[in-house]
Amino acid sequence: MSPTTSRTHAQAGDIAMLVSAQNKRFLVRLTPDHKLETHRGILPHNDLIGQSWGSRVRSHLDSPFVLIQPTLADLLMETRRNTQIMYPKDIGFILVTMGIGPGQLVIEAGSGSGSFTTALAHAVGPQGRVVSYDIRPEMQRLALKNVSLAGLAERVTFKEKDILAGFDEAGEGAADALFLDVPFPHEYAAQAHAALKPGGSFGSILPTTNQVSTLLVALKRAGFAFIDVCETMLRYYKTVPERLRPTDRMVAHTGYLIFARSVLPEAGELLNQETSRRRGKAMQSEDIEPAEDIEQDEDERA
Amino acid sequence: MSPTTSRTHAQAGDIAMLVSAQNKRFLVRLTPDHKLETHRGILPHNDLIGQSWGSRVRSHLDSPFVLIQPTLADLLMETRRNTQIMYPKDIGFILVTMGIGPGQLVIEAGSGSGSFTTALAHAVGPQGRVVSYDIRPEMQRLALKNVSLAGLAERVTFKEKDILAGFDEAGEGAADALFLDVPFPHEYAAQAHAALKPGGSFGSILPTTNQVSTLLVALKRAGFAFIDVCETMLRYYKTVPERLRPTDRMVAHTGYLIFARSVLPEAGELLNQETSRRRGKAMQSEDIEPAEDIEQDEDERA
Amino acid sequence: MSPTTSRTHAQAGDIAMLVSAQNKRFLVRLTPDHKLETHRGILPHNDLIGQSWGSRVRSHLDSPFVLIQPTLADLLMETRRNTQIMYPKDIGFILVTMGIGPGQLVIEAGSGSGSFTTALAHAVGPQGRVVSYDIRPEMQRLALKNVSLAGLAERVTFKEKDILAGFDEAGEGAADALFLDVPFPHEYAAQAHAALKPGGSFGSILPTTNQVSTLLVALKRAGFAFIDVCETMLRYYKTVPERLRPTDRMVAHTGYLIFARSVLPEAGELLNQETSRRRGKAMQSEDIEPAEDIEQDEDERA
Amino acid sequence: MSPTTSRTHAQAGDIAMLVSAQNKRFLVRLTPDHKLETHRGILPHNDLIGQSWGSRVRSHLDSPFVLIQPTLADLLMETRRNTQIMYPKDIGFILVTMGIGPGQLVIEAGSGSGSFTTALAHAVGPQGRVVSYDIRPEMQRLALKNVSLAGLAERVTFKEKDILAGFDEAGEGAADALFLDVPFPHEYAAQAHAALKPGGSFGSILPTTNQVSTLLVALKRAGFAFIDVCETMLRYYKTVPERLRPTDRMVAHTGYLIFARSVLPEAGELLNQETSRRRGKAMQSEDIEPAEDIEQDEDERA
Repeated sequence: MSPTTSRTHAQAGDIAMLVSAQNKRFLVRLTPDHKLETHRGILPHNDLIGQSWGSRVRSHLDSPFVLIQPTLADLLMETRRNTQIMYPKDIGFILVTMGIGPGQLVIEAGSGSGSFTTALAHAVGPQGRVVSYDIRPEMQRLALKNVSLAGLAERVTFKEKDILAGFDEAGEGAADALFLDVPFPHEYAAQAHAALKPGGSFGSILPTTNQVSTLLVALKRAGFAFIDVCETMLRYYKTVPERLRPTDRMVAHTGYLIFARSVLPEAGELLNQETSRRRGKAMQSEDIEPAEDIEQDEDERA
Repeated sequence: MSPTTSRTHAQAGDIAMLVSAQNKRFLVRLTPDHKLETHRGILPHNDLIGQSWGSRVRSHLDSPFVLIQPTLADLLMETRRNTQIMYPKDIGFILVTMGIGPGQLVIEAGSGSGSFTTALAHAVGPQGRVVSYDIRPEMQRLALKNVSLAGLAERVTFKEKDILAGFDEAGEGAADALFLDVPFPHEYAAQAHAALKPGGSFGSILPTTNQVSTLLVALKRAGFAFIDVCETMLRYYKTVPERLRPTDRMVAHTGYLIFARSVLPEAGELLNQETSRRRGKAMQSEDIEPAEDIEQDEDERA
Repeated sequence: MSPTTSRTHAQAGDIAMLVSAQNKRFLVRLTPDHKLETHRGILPHNDLIGQSWGSRVRSHLDSPFVLIQPTLADLLMETRRNTQIMYPKDIGFILVTMGIGPGQLVIEAGSGSGSFTTALAHAVGPQGRVVSYDIRPEMQRLALKNVSLAGLAERVTFKEKDILAGFDEAGEGAADALFLDVPFPHEYAAQAHAALKPGGSFGSILPTTNQVSTLLVALKRAGFAFIDVCETMLRYYKTVPERLRPTDRMVAHTGYLIFARSVLPEAGELLNQETSRRRGKAMQSEDIEPAEDIEQDEDERA
Repeated sequence: MSPTTSRTHAQAGDIAMLVSAQNKRFLVRLTPDHKLETHRGILPHNDLIGQSWGSRVRSHLDSPFVLIQPTLADLLMETRRNTQIMYPKDIGFILVTMGIGPGQLVIEAGSGSGSFTTALAHAVGPQGRVVSYDIRPEMQRLALKNVSLAGLAERVTFKEKDILAGFDEAGEGAADALFLDVPFPHEYAAQAHAALKPGGSFGSILPTTNQVSTLLVALKRAGFAFIDVCETMLRYYKTVPERLRPTDRMVAHTGYLIFARSVLPEAGELLNQETSRRRGKAMQSEDIEPAEDIEQDEDERA
């Protein structure tokens, strides 16, 4: 949560979320004398400031709303965007897998709409720093806007720069973690390795399998190891206790996640040697999938 | 990362991970004059202290290992446990969905093996606090051990207490977020509501659908709204660029996730009223699923 | 395919599918002198009869279409419906799991919109028979219509009857397989068992977990064994070779599938005895999930 | 079911499945004077012949078993195999999607272990025919063995032939459907098109995304349209009514399924033209995923 948020009551400067009875949501930064215009009436901020979080308030048309603090996930899903956002289900898993936490220096490229930037800024805390690279000034304007909406702008440095030439961060000033959300991340694998401290965490997200294959080749060449590729899926349930069941639809794909760790050359050789050796053994029967012992136990069939 | 970790080189007091060529992993806290005994030889800590992270080191049998810092996910998966752990894929999503971040006060019950406690302590940063309740002293001993291994023990208060009698936290000292990982969370819904600040985040994880239904009833009674039930699934891919494909097996179920927000009574009535109204309309044709317009577009069939 | 379908060229009486360039699909039964009116012009059937399957034809507005035979899946997805259909992904799995094939006698209740009836009629072949029960005449009218559209009506007997009183089939005339697609299948478990030959296959589909639990209890009481509960999920990919990736959306839930086999009483006791014994052992630590050895191999994490 | 199976009682010549109390399964073809040796005693076939299906029988050590007919799915999962089998979840969906049914002529290559051959033979009925190509005689020996075990050998013709030279079937003798389960199906796309009747169904299964991309290119060149790529996933549940939950593990990947229809040249051009046109429009913003309107309704988030 932004450090300006009161713990029990809304205060001027807080970011608030108003939720109508039909679950329509509005995000505002509470400012004295400002007002929120909704389809169901006007809500003067002065009527909200000082109210308890989680309380019911009313518009001038007497339409009820619930006043509540947005969580990070709420902020992420509500931000204005001009490009594909990253979803909470991926963001959470990325943060934990890459070990991003308070006090760290984290690089991202590009800036996108600032939703992931916001999540990074949230996670690194007041002692941490996020450096966000992009070559498109209009992107960074939107990203800065959204990061400010979350009250986290002071932790973020935007750099309008082409990362093909490399990142500024290196050596003693190298980053703990670096995330690439760009169309051709493989072109920056070496630059990423140079900007990460030894053992630093790399991450990326890509829409197609073709791009994943390309990035895998580049990562191994650039001195990365512990490479993982995965995807997460999230399914919601209807919350009627006596008729519990999944919803009808779900998001099928938000991207493939790629993770790796920066290592020193002999360490990279060590790990790649072993992988090649194991891969070699498999190669002979790779064309025809070898017979697998499928456990026919109670738990598992297909 | 623990604040005692050097950014580029391993230092005494750091938690280190040693990875063999066959990907066997060992966690140690680097201590002068101590040694790590592995199946492939002994690694004196003195040989590791001062080495660059991501470098290759050798046991006394000349067997190679990579020295690298464990991320949060690494710590979570390697901890000794005597009960079901929570997985990184759920932990990340829980932290983002519940908006848990630096400076917060977060309550959890039970303490489990301390893996989730570690994740919470990591996320709240040096200014935050985690209070972990359990009635089983042996649980808390293990949890404390694992939280200490991560270097985060000073942020965590363990309370050996039966939460049926309620949590200590309330009013001005109420928590920002509260997570229940116990067999019968519905028995503590009211206590949880009392311990959360208004608008605070509630979360729980349960193995069976029956338990989810029971908790849903209790949450609505206890003054919670914005209730969600969901599950995440994670699938890994084999990282061979020219033969990209998912792995053969995956974890099918780690638990159902339940989230909610604490609201004031009239806010709860408002939101439940609307849900009931919509539910009532649906009820008439509920026995036979009503005809649905299934979009027959390129994207979606079944 | 219906026996009236020519193998290479469309003939009068065939069911044909016309597909526009924008993938809009139309089903017709080819009849001399009839015509198909589309949003892109009229297609007289006389112009289609005698054309090769898989050929391009044109409407009177010169708009092109492809003339092709609908597969079973095409028929299922295009049928008019007034209730939830069963999807091809479930139908295929049900047919294989229940072993439904040529020459069999299969019972279903209710008749639904006839899409599953069509699939059953297709699978049992000219020597088989499907008996379809429902208490709603309007349902059976629609079902008969759709089964006739597929040219399979002669294999199906519709019975307007309340199955609470039992099925007509029994003893020597008992069914090989029986499928219940009704809101409260647990009320008919005993009747189903009586209508199945010994060792016969039972199947059902239900939307909620609550209903599944109820059915499981009833099935065990009614003398069924080898009980399975499962769900299938299907995800499509965009078919661009150089940008291969899943579609954005997918169907999240079509129902839980329940399968069982009819056995004699002592066989039922034998299998349930063993299950209870194993269940009893687990019960002691059931409240707290026992520690599981999660394989930490390359393939599987969460 | 095999036509030799009695509907209520086991007879000589039937294929039977014996299931122990611990769910260990044994398949036998009932033959007078033969016996089945199990880890829990001997079961003379003479003691089984004439018994009711679904009854309890005992070994000479008085150990109980249930005598039941195997369904197709049971046969598939129990066959001896020397290569990757195809799973029931895929087989069912393939049969329905490709519209394979009684009376058809279906080609497959390779023969594999005969499990899919068995499913095809089952589905085409006594009037249908399956032609199974392979260049490895040992494969066909095993396949014939397994197809015979199911009592369906008379519907299957095995041809030991390299399909690079083309299939025998063409023109009036062309197939209704053709399935390729080989490592490099793209090499046979033209041959497959020649062996299918116009409008005929093509199907294939491949383990890697790379292979899928390659096949997509070949299919479009060879005159196929209506091309789909998809994958199915199946998850089982533990069948305890009061503790309903998914199992812990599941199969993550059995292969990508590719389907297509054979069309005439101008029809292929028509459909590919449209697809290219739509693809061209998308290309400009393809590098950066365009902003999508994600429905933020109750059902769907990520």
